Amino acid sequence: MKGQIEMKQELFFGNWLSAATDEKLEIHEQSWLLAEDGKIKSLGKEKPQVAESVRVHNFGDKLLIPPFSDLHLHAVQAMNCGLGLDLTLLDWLKTYTYPEESRFADPAYAEAVFRRVIHELWKFGSLNSIIFSSLHKEATLLLMKLLQEAGLRAYVGKVNMDRLSPDYLHESAEESLAATREWLEESRAYGALVKPIITPRFAPSCTDQLLEGLGLIVEDYDLPLQSHLNETPEEVALVHELFPRAQNYLEVYEHFGLLPRGKTVMAHCIYNSREEEAFLLEKQITIAHCPSSNMNIASGISRIRDYMKEGFLIGLGSDISGGESLSMQQVIKDALKSSALLSRKRKLTVPPLSLNEIFYLATRGGRAFFPESGGFEEGLSCDFLVIDDEVDKLPRQFSLEERLHRFLYYASPDEITTRVLAAVILPEPQL
Amino acid sequence: MKGQIEMKQELFFGNWLSAATDEKLEIHEQSWLLAEDGKIKSLGKEKPQVAESVRVHNFGDKLLIPPFSDLHLHAVQAMNCGLGLDLTLLDWLKTYTYPEESRFADPAYAEAVFRRVIHELWKFGSLNSIIFSSLHKEATLLLMKLLQEAGLRAYVGKVNMDRLSPDYLHESAEESLAATREWLEESRAYGALVKPIITPRFAPSCTDQLLEGLGLIVEDYDLPLQSHLNETPEEVALVHELFPRAQNYLEVYEHFGLLPRGKTVMAHCIYNSREEEAFLLEKQITIAHCPSSNMNIASGISRIRDYMKEGFLIGLGSDISGGESLSMQQVIKDALKSSALLSRKRKLTVPPLSLNEIFYLATRGGRAFFPESGGFEEGLSCDFLVIDDEVDKLPRQFSLEERLHRFLYYASPDEITTRVLAAVILPEPQL
Repeated sequence: MKGQIEMKQELFFGNWLSAATDEKLEIHEQSWLLAEDGKIKSLGKEKPQVAESVRVHNFGDKLLIPPFSDLHLHAVQAMNCGLGLDLTLLDWLKTYTYPEESRFADPAYAEAVFRRVIHELWKFGSLNSIIFSSLHKEATLLLMKLLQEAGLRAYVGKVNMDRLSPDYLHESAEESLAATREWLEESRAYGALVKPIITPRFAPSCTDQLLEGLGLIVEDYDLPLQSHLNETPEEVALVHELFPRAQNYLEVYEHFGLLPRGKTVMAHCIYNSREEEAFLLEKQITIAHCPSSNMNIASGISRIRDYMKEGFLIGLGSDISGGESLSMQQVIKDALKSSALLSRKRKLTVPPLSLNEIFYLATRGGRAFFPESGGFEEGLSCDFLVIDDEVDKLPRQFSLEERLHRFLYYASPDEITTRVLAAVILPEPQL
Repeated sequence: MKGQIEMKQELFFGNWLSAATDEKLEIHEQSWLLAEDGKIKSLGKEKPQVAESVRVHNFGDKLLIPPFSDLHLHAVQAMNCGLGLDLTLLDWLKTYTYPEESRFADPAYAEAVFRRVIHELWKFGSLNSIIFSSLHKEATLLLMKLLQEAGLRAYVGKVNMDRLSPDYLHESAEESLAATREWLEESRAYGALVKPIITPRFAPSCTDQLLEGLGLIVEDYDLPLQSHLNETPEEVALVHELFPRAQNYLEVYEHFGLLPRGKTVMAHCIYNSREEEAFLLEKQITIAHCPSSNMNIASGISRIRDYMKEGFLIGLGSDISGGESLSMQQVIKDALKSSALLSRKRKLTVPPLSLNEIFYLATRGGRAFFPESGGFEEGLSCDFLVIDDEVDKLPRQFSLEERLHRFLYYASPDEITTRVLAAVILPEPQL
């Protein structure tokens, strides 16, 4: 057993803001946070008594908030950000996405792009993320290695797809399953922060044989799973055509054992049937709400605030390059905007997402995958972002809550000046 | 008559992209633009023969695009950006907007805020703008003076409002009209770039007496006019209640002579009746489409692409602080996003705005007010932005059109490195 004297302590001072629940903004103004071995020990007004050797980080009047969790993004689509956003899902995949993803057979290209993605995750404060790679095993391992080196926390998935893809981006079911098992063995090297996640692209991209094999792998390795669900009406129609025996889209995944309870994240979830909604709840599936993408490629608006109030697990995803940016501030704005439009559509009978609700989704929405991050309670990992909003230069005063509003809805991402994970300040990743 | 030898010439080199029409992106790759006395003389591949003394600005492989025109913004609401965006229009006015606007009785506060607004207009490349000030005459004159000093082109309006406003932000009709005439006399000092525009806040804020008096001023001074129209159903209902004899909202303005032909800009225009649409066309009224604001405060989505195709005059407005940012890149993204959602609502039977259509709206949409700016044809003012997208550092190549996409939909505003108006590089305004 470790003696207290061996524990590594750090002290941090500033204004701490977190979303304790979706209804409550928790503020610790001008307070001290004590970390021990990377975990939060205490947070309060009084300065803890510590040894003189303990390092003190004084962030003065700055805002300190939990890091963002980006629950859905395609690292291999990063170079397409901002391109082709006047197409809809299925056309967009063929015209922009598949050609770009095929480039990741080249490790040099993969490294150049992944370094940019990792730099942006760091820059924008998304210290927790759940990532789609491409179908290439080597590129996927490289992405995991680079994330680990950058000190970011992530789940990464090698994509599986053996149907409806072009010749130049195709694997057979056997190849896909074999490569997945190899990848899982080789990815054991990245255990602490970076973990594998099973990643069938989406049901239409996979034959029964592939889905069945992936179900066995999920069971064998006790792994989490990510995929897409009910993004557009056209996609839902395609699933019905390809899987005529399934009652609905979600049942396709369930049939093959691809919904590990409490460890599944499904992107989008806009066009859910009542049966699927009940099942999403029952299986404790996390919904990755991707409002930027859902607007960009004309998918629609998910009734995310209802779901939150009904007890669903929900977080936010940038979904690049359906979403155009890895900035969670952009995703937060888009969540608010699309929620407000839904409120208008319902003649304002239901309010749009509030500031605290969006803050909660952005920081705590990944709690099924990152239970150690997202808040400042004792025992959690000491993770936070430092926001320097240069408030002393502004013509008038703002409350801490207003400063948080301004940061989330208005500010440049450059206001994030420092990122801390497990009490360690993360250095800028190499480009 | 000026001899040719006296003309001040400048030569600019780079990649020129502009929206010649809403259907055509015009590209002059690696071309030379010759300016004479601040106006465009020629643009072509061949280097013009000029005297050795003529200054050459070589922007190499960078993108050169026309500046943005922001057709609707409230300079006095700048400090509210990002605040209160979970309220709807009428509540938001009472809770956030009116208290903030009342601060502009204080010239020191006004100057501090206006300097920030002007810095952002410069930074984000909005070299042409149409601006609401507050009802304060002195603050409005100060704003005009500071814009003139910064070298930005703008119309600025002292707001008129004698109804439905709180005691602390109120003027009688007589006071308002007298102050307006004084302001117009004093604003003659800012003639070249910065011009006055008559600005009734919106019909519900003005009594018949005030509207009638403003109509006479428009006629006396031959002035343009800006206001709001059909932003929310609640506002439209309020207009019907307050002006029961008017057939519709637009008729209120028309009745009092407040729609000078080809010189009126109306923000929003979401809930137009058929009669109003016909009248908007007939009077050549410019619609300032403000998608960020229309989403933020749950106003709705204007069918802007239809209007464009039907020949309406339409441009974009940031509408801070209904919109959260003065960045036209943000407004462009939101125009695309809301247009895509409208396309989905219509089951994809009508396409969303294309890149070129949005680029056209952002650069040429203000042509009724800024006919000298927005393109690179001979005779226009030599106005442009220099975009440094550091394309040589990217892992793969992009076409010029793709680079424009990336800039408009994805890039940081920091990629705008230089702003040119009338062939003069605008220095960074003092904060």
